Amino acid sequence: MLEQKLHRAYQRIKPFVHNTAVLRSSTIDKMTGSHIFFKCENFQRMGAFKMRGATNAILQLSDQQRKKGVVTHSSGNMAQALSLAAKSLNIPAYIVMPENAPHVKKAAVREYGGIITECPPTIDEREKAAQHIMDKTGAAFIHPSNDLEVILGQGTAAYELLKSHTGLDYLMVPVGGGGLLAGTAIAAKAISPATRVIGGEPENVDDAYRSLKSGKIEYNTSSDTIADGLRTHLGDINFPIIKEGVEEIITVSESSIVEAMRLVWERMKIIIEPSCAVPLAAVFKEEEKFKGKKTGIILSGGNVDLTQLPF
Amino acid sequence: MLEQKLHRAYQRIKPFVHNTAVLRSSTIDKMTGSHIFFKCENFQRMGAFKMRGATNAILQLSDQQRKKGVVTHSSGNMAQALSLAAKSLNIPAYIVMPENAPHVKKAAVREYGGIITECPPTIDEREKAAQHIMDKTGAAFIHPSNDLEVILGQGTAAYELLKSHTGLDYLMVPVGGGGLLAGTAIAAKAISPATRVIGGEPENVDDAYRSLKSGKIEYNTSSDTIADGLRTHLGDINFPIIKEGVEEIITVSESSIVEAMRLVWERMKIIIEPSCAVPLAAVFKEEEKFKGKKTGIILSGGNVDLTQLPF
Repeated sequence: MLEQKLHRAYQRIKPFVHNTAVLRSSTIDKMTGSHIFFKCENFQRMGAFKMRGATNAILQLSDQQRKKGVVTHSSGNMAQALSLAAKSLNIPAYIVMPENAPHVKKAAVREYGGIITECPPTIDEREKAAQHIMDKTGAAFIHPSNDLEVILGQGTAAYELLKSHTGLDYLMVPVGGGGLLAGTAIAAKAISPATRVIGGEPENVDDAYRSLKSGKIEYNTSSDTIADGLRTHLGDINFPIIKEGVEEIITVSESSIVEAMRLVWERMKIIIEPSCAVPLAAVFKEEEKFKGKKTGIILSGGNVDLTQLPF
Repeated sequence: MLEQKLHRAYQRIKPFVHNTAVLRSSTIDKMTGSHIFFKCENFQRMGAFKMRGATNAILQLSDQQRKKGVVTHSSGNMAQALSLAAKSLNIPAYIVMPENAPHVKKAAVREYGGIITECPPTIDEREKAAQHIMDKTGAAFIHPSNDLEVILGQGTAAYELLKSHTGLDYLMVPVGGGGLLAGTAIAAKAISPATRVIGGEPENVDDAYRSLKSGKIEYNTSSDTIADGLRTHLGDINFPIIKEGVEEIITVSESSIVEAMRLVWERMKIIIEPSCAVPLAAVFKEEEKFKGKKTGIILSGGNVDLTQLPF
């Protein structure tokens, strides 16, 4: 059922997103002993896979709903993705951002046509501001990760990879809010049921790892990780999908994330966000598991502030 | 005649180099008004087009010569390229490097199997050290840019681009020692005579620009440019080819090089050296010329020290 929805989501968003390149690195293959296929969502429109979910969510709205626009609260890629997706489809996007969000992120949202409302930097205030906009404009709320249409949209990255590269033993993605991981699990079930889906997560924000162990959604007490896209927690819509379709979550240290990120920059000559480097760090951590195997990794995005690099 | 040699050079080196991707950027197209096709030699083996010339030069040696190895003096990409090309073909590479060359560059040469001889940092001392190695080992000297086989090898990047993307109005490359520019001119004549070849050069080291004006090889008094691959001057083998086949050389400021480099990093999510950004800076400088035209740019390499970025 979800698998059929994924096929339809892919057909729906195809005209609006890039079918991104899959790159390989003989150096990294030699270092890990694995055969790694990197799906480059850093080359996606606006620089991240979030463009897929945002586009699918908007395309699922009725014409009547679309006219009223969409709203989300986010300080990250989803704010930019929803703004650009809405602009492509000629509808307004209202973005609630904490007033302390970095200037560059606000500028990027504005550049993509998003209408920003600033609010105090707490979840409560963000939700209140979003609700206020919905009441006033009738705009539809789009959650960045806990929304089935968003999840299906994110799953199209894995969909493309599994279609173009058959026989993958593993498929790995970073896990933050859980949208990409859940979408990837649906894609594996739909296209390549033998491929095992694994999440990579920073040790410092290991809520998803603990959630899979305990069977209920766990939360982080810290947000202290360089992988700024992964500080959020799972939701009630994506967690059941993750429980069913994900083999395990591997947690990694901060230093190993920076090391893997640097390796990709230096050897593959491509720019990836710290969050993207988490699955590769996991391959290095559990080398034996991946040795001789065909491993897909979704490089989730490439939006970094070049003046704030960890090297 | 040179065109036939280029075809043969391409067939010869094909098994040893990557046919690199050609990327586009809708943002940069919109900003420039041109339709730009970026040939990504930053994704080439060892991170730069120099791999092509080094490979072709070695493959042109007799079996007898190959056994004795090759020698060059370089502190840059050619040192690494010759080392890796020699390693792929199982012969020794002797690399003369100035003793003040950056540690990372020496480490890279060693990693690729090059045998380093250090010398005082003057051209005289470099040449003396190389001669000494030739006398002792019988190794063949390979010049980084003023060697016909090297030039033909470098020309295969343009060869691939012009074969895969027909109808380019312009084809642009950075000019340092002149090997890439001369090879590109040969390729255009061979594959797409209507395509005009243009060099990009930093204002601060505009020897090639002045050479085309005066009709004789000019030299730089300064080496003060961030584009560290472009500090050298033309040679007696590549200059006649450049004079015949290159329409013009456009010089650009240091700040425009950094700006163009940053644009490629931020928008295309790929890592390019400062030298690579010079042709794009030239497109911005002479916008009217390139507006509405199909413009190929060879991104020459991606070997940068991530701890020494200009942003």
